[in-house]
Amino acid sequence: MSDFFSLKYENDNLIFIDQTKLPLVEEYITTDNYQRIALAIEQLEIRGAPAIGIAAAYGITVAMKERANSVSTQFNDAFERLASTRPTAVNLFWALEEMRKVYDKNSNEVELYNELKKRAIEIHTDDINSCEAIAANGIELFQKDSVILTHCNTGQLATGGAGTAFNVIQRAFKVGRVSKVYADETRPLLQGSRLTAFELSKANIPFEIVPDSAAAFLMKQRKIDAVIVGADRIAKNGDTANKIGTYNLAILCNYYNIPFYIAAPVSTVDYSIPNGNHIEIEMRGNEEVSNIRGVQVTKSEYDAYTPAFDITPHELITAIITDKKLHKPPFDL
Amino acid sequence: MSDFFSLKYENDNLIFIDQTKLPLVEEYITTDNYQRIALAIEQLEIRGAPAIGIAAAYGITVAMKERANSVSTQFNDAFERLASTRPTAVNLFWALEEMRKVYDKNSNEVELYNELKKRAIEIHTDDINSCEAIAANGIELFQKDSVILTHCNTGQLATGGAGTAFNVIQRAFKVGRVSKVYADETRPLLQGSRLTAFELSKANIPFEIVPDSAAAFLMKQRKIDAVIVGADRIAKNGDTANKIGTYNLAILCNYYNIPFYIAAPVSTVDYSIPNGNHIEIEMRGNEEVSNIRGVQVTKSEYDAYTPAFDITPHELITAIITDKKLHKPPFDL
Repeated sequence: MSDFFSLKYENDNLIFIDQTKLPLVEEYITTDNYQRIALAIEQLEIRGAPAIGIAAAYGITVAMKERANSVSTQFNDAFERLASTRPTAVNLFWALEEMRKVYDKNSNEVELYNELKKRAIEIHTDDINSCEAIAANGIELFQKDSVILTHCNTGQLATGGAGTAFNVIQRAFKVGRVSKVYADETRPLLQGSRLTAFELSKANIPFEIVPDSAAAFLMKQRKIDAVIVGADRIAKNGDTANKIGTYNLAILCNYYNIPFYIAAPVSTVDYSIPNGNHIEIEMRGNEEVSNIRGVQVTKSEYDAYTPAFDITPHELITAIITDKKLHKPPFDL
Repeated sequence: MSDFFSLKYENDNLIFIDQTKLPLVEEYITTDNYQRIALAIEQLEIRGAPAIGIAAAYGITVAMKERANSVSTQFNDAFERLASTRPTAVNLFWALEEMRKVYDKNSNEVELYNELKKRAIEIHTDDINSCEAIAANGIELFQKDSVILTHCNTGQLATGGAGTAFNVIQRAFKVGRVSKVYADETRPLLQGSRLTAFELSKANIPFEIVPDSAAAFLMKQRKIDAVIVGADRIAKNGDTANKIGTYNLAILCNYYNIPFYIAAPVSTVDYSIPNGNHIEIEMRGNEEVSNIRGVQVTKSEYDAYTPAFDITPHELITAIITDKKLHKPPFDL
């Protein structure tokens, strides 16, 4: 086991690691305030599609522990606030709707908190199990000593369990099917160089960080056997929203004939949309390029195009690994 | 004319803008010390293949102005020191060899400084003229209101004149053939978000900065009519070394069927090499990803793969614009 955790519910409080400070500082925050949890999701102290869903479920839970308002006002306020944090990851909305089902079913105010807490813990536990099932379903994709390139962060930090794409890599490493990982830096927020590097280091997996723009030359100069990444939302036809830069990699894989895999729990699949055109992409601001970790690097008045995610069309995806099964084209999730 | 300059020779001193401080601070350094000029090239205070060549020529010049050593020791020391600064841009070696020709021809020690100075100024003036010729040769590639994506920096700062790719863009903008520019951020050193944005802003050309990894999604979401970039070394067959990330863009252009152009003076062509396999690529260190503008963002012990340049194979290049002519495939430079 690793000597850190992303989030847990203990003594009726959510405890989470502040991902914005990693890897230089490992600091945990303990709160029973849903507004603080919403802020944590907004500020990316908690991030990663599955982790966001779990945190939102715990957010609803703590909101109903003690309250000044009526039950319905409090529930709806917390629901709206948490739902407004980030638009792309579908796990957030899925988890909130799961919590609403419990709320709708329960007319006993006294029992409500316990029922919500029970469901939130279930959602968390299910995600832990999903991470294991994803790894089990994905491991067969890798031969001996594969060299992998990944983007953004998909490990413990991004999930309730041991990760999505990261857990496939980790499990494959343990049995000698993966020998080395290249981790895309992942601008603008450096989830690769900060978080994935942190997790790879903790797991003792040999790795090198690579600037996002160096992927093409890396694929030319060194052996890359596969690219595997996570997802923030997957449409029924397999079109996948994931961290900006994923689509770049998929096109490079297509050019080099390198397999390109997505790994995600089924809670990331949005069964309500036929394709990726229906996915709302969160746009961030100029400050994501003018300011890096608190330091101004260029003028903040310079305009910037900064989508948080992109959408990789299904035809560039070799396989989608979920906790249910290994999906191969043509995708019908 | 812009209200800044990259470098000039005045009162027997080289004056150059410190590009590492831009765009937040516009600061000029005046020196007649060749070691300081070598350091400036090494530290990227002076950068851009043509600008490096010119600075090296002035470096040889100032070295021979006053000297403690014998003429030959001083010349050879300065030559070696300047040649050791950066390995990839061929303009550096070309300019140094031009200066050696003057040195070899001149047996009169008194006249040597003046002859070297004359040749260095010629090299600089030729580059100014090259920039104009490149723009004249490249402008026909753009239709009305083209939207352009560029990478790294290729303007005044990178050259002795008005730029290579940047000057084509600028000239095309003036006559309505370009309406907007997207400038790749250009990690790790942010030449795009710092230097190209600075130059575009000074030239009043509408622009947005884009994280390198967002190029694929940008090409999907918005109209991009062409990508145009500079070069650090071009082989006889057209294979082109340029800032890391160039090759990525060329593959994306290939996927989207967007024209991909290189613009550079003939001093960037290395006629001695048949193809790109002969180009030495400068490797930089972990600190390029662990440290951004003096701020530690991740652990410096994490290994990183950080080539300063990549090599785009000629088959991905639509045209190469030099000061001589517009080269179309099959390339034979």
